[in-house]
Amino acid sequence: MRVNGETCQSIWFDEGSQQVKIIDQTLLPHQFVSLTLDSLAATTQAIVSMQVRGAPLIGITAAFGVYLALRNKEADLETACQRLLLTRPTAVNLHWALQRVLTEVSAQDPGRQTASALNIARQLWQEDADSCSAIGENGLQILQDLWQHKSAQSSGAVSCLNILTHCNAGWLATADWGTALAPIYKAHLQGIPVHVWVDETRPRNQGASLTAWELQRQGIAHTVIVDNAGGHLMQHGQVDVCIVGSDRTTANGDVCNKIGTYLKALAAVDNGIPFYAALPVSTIDFTMHDGIKEIPIEERDSKEVSHMQGPDAQGQMHQVQVTPSGTRISNYGFDVTPARLVTGLITEQGVFPATPAGLAAIKNAATKHVTK
Amino acid sequence: MRVNGETCQSIWFDEGSQQVKIIDQTLLPHQFVSLTLDSLAATTQAIVSMQVRGAPLIGITAAFGVYLALRNKEADLETACQRLLLTRPTAVNLHWALQRVLTEVSAQDPGRQTASALNIARQLWQEDADSCSAIGENGLQILQDLWQHKSAQSSGAVSCLNILTHCNAGWLATADWGTALAPIYKAHLQGIPVHVWVDETRPRNQGASLTAWELQRQGIAHTVIVDNAGGHLMQHGQVDVCIVGSDRTTANGDVCNKIGTYLKALAAVDNGIPFYAALPVSTIDFTMHDGIKEIPIEERDSKEVSHMQGPDAQGQMHQVQVTPSGTRISNYGFDVTPARLVTGLITEQGVFPATPAGLAAIKNAATKHVTK
Repeated sequence: MRVNGETCQSIWFDEGSQQVKIIDQTLLPHQFVSLTLDSLAATTQAIVSMQVRGAPLIGITAAFGVYLALRNKEADLETACQRLLLTRPTAVNLHWALQRVLTEVSAQDPGRQTASALNIARQLWQEDADSCSAIGENGLQILQDLWQHKSAQSSGAVSCLNILTHCNAGWLATADWGTALAPIYKAHLQGIPVHVWVDETRPRNQGASLTAWELQRQGIAHTVIVDNAGGHLMQHGQVDVCIVGSDRTTANGDVCNKIGTYLKALAAVDNGIPFYAALPVSTIDFTMHDGIKEIPIEERDSKEVSHMQGPDAQGQMHQVQVTPSGTRISNYGFDVTPARLVTGLITEQGVFPATPAGLAAIKNAATKHVTK
Repeated sequence: MRVNGETCQSIWFDEGSQQVKIIDQTLLPHQFVSLTLDSLAATTQAIVSMQVRGAPLIGITAAFGVYLALRNKEADLETACQRLLLTRPTAVNLHWALQRVLTEVSAQDPGRQTASALNIARQLWQEDADSCSAIGENGLQILQDLWQHKSAQSSGAVSCLNILTHCNAGWLATADWGTALAPIYKAHLQGIPVHVWVDETRPRNQGASLTAWELQRQGIAHTVIVDNAGGHLMQHGQVDVCIVGSDRTTANGDVCNKIGTYLKALAAVDNGIPFYAALPVSTIDFTMHDGIKEIPIEERDSKEVSHMQGPDAQGQMHQVQVTPSGTRISNYGFDVTPARLVTGLITEQGVFPATPAGLAAIKNAATKHVTK
């Protein structure tokens, strides 16, 4: 993706300095700053503090973290993987990525392990970028159909196709393109007049701060709304389709995503609006069959709810308190949208129903793809 | 209600100074400051800026505004009512209160109109306090039953009755007691161990700033959550009942309340949790039969979404920007929860189903009460 006229990635390996670089996503949208990750400790800290976030990007970042650990002789392979695995509990492809690094690197001679870890990290990046591009193409079909249908149904001029998204599942959350935003980017490139309703996504406001920033950079029409507003818009015909990402999807099609996703899915179904989750196959947990009962939901620092950060009118940054002092706060990071509310899963292998049969078909397609 | 050991009201007429006093609710929870309303202009400004808010309190404040207009010779009766009516479009009892002031004051000799306006304003206050107390008693029955049932069902010790509420429908929103919070206050006084999940209620955070503050003052256990979290809590058995207020309820039982209420009602129904609206009869609009189609939904300043206010660690207040500069924002103030999602309406006349028959019964009971 391009930012200020230059090609930009959410994470990259700088050949000159031999360093891993990221965008500090906690400073967006107000400041666009890149950071160097020079150690395992810096990498785990970047994941925990959410300087990098988004299920696919966390996996890639962790792989780079293993490389840094081995290069710096900071920890052995297993210890590095263990430490990185503990950073975030909900996203399954952190586990998947580390498992892959562990298997491939441990198969190498000790002298080649560092180079192998770097190689796998870069390979994960490329695979994720390719997956996200394919997700975009597959989701584009859905948006094209919806746009055609909307244009055909309307007697007068139709202004745009209205898409609602929650949190940030854009290129900042992945290697490139994004998951939920990939079809939107592709539709925009195809000339479909898309307009995106961006849930601000409390408590960390990834919608207002990251998704709005991404869409602004690509010149895509969008409107930020509070998380409370989507239902009202859906009741009044202002939303044609919802697309969200997923941090973990179970073998029966339950979708775990940013807290509040479930509420939007309920409203979509109540108003006959299609509700899609867009996700790479790596975020599917085929060992789980009941998302609500089985997926561990991360509880995060209450300060994410009690405090908000931003610049004042003079551009000076402040962190302000928005709850009464001493009030108890609870801060769950994710919720689970039951499969019955999900119209379909947009993956790099195609669009599948959120059912055990659909998930079996995804597994089948992915296996074929790998063994090709 | 009592604040810092002293009896406190959301609006009062100070006999000594002959002034109308309010709490500046835009400064809560960080500062507890009372203000004098000394003119019609100050009153309309206080309503528009939400220094006073909450459907019942807006009606009472408007009545005091008419008194101030007449006392100051600032505007004639009709002009004053007209100006006050334009301050907020959604709450129907603003219209109801002003209609009552207009009818009763215009029936008086010119020399007695000012005194009459003050008299009616104080009467509206007392009636609302009485209504809210009755709402509390009627809602208490529901909470007692739920608590009894929960205790009986459980084999071990049950810690508390978990109630979820949205926005602020407490004593700050009414003359006294509140609507949604009145049953909770009464249950607490009866010794039922209540715990309240407080939706922060973006964009203006009336839950985090007003409801949490109210509950803290009365020593009631509560936890602030983001608006996204309620569905997850309901899926995990952490909510026994939802109670919200209402700014306007239609003759078929549709409940218009703070934006986001509809999403919580959907989640409550999806999880088999009772969902009640608590409201004085004055907030019912018997002329409307389809809330989604007919109730005008106020759109407010986008700055409520893009900026947040609070003290920094040193206690200094700042307003910070939380969205990218130049991003379009939409800010609807209310949504409509269809009657089919509402378990019951808790009014001062009793608890009624949210159906045309239930509303007809409320009307009948209210008419009998008036003509008694």
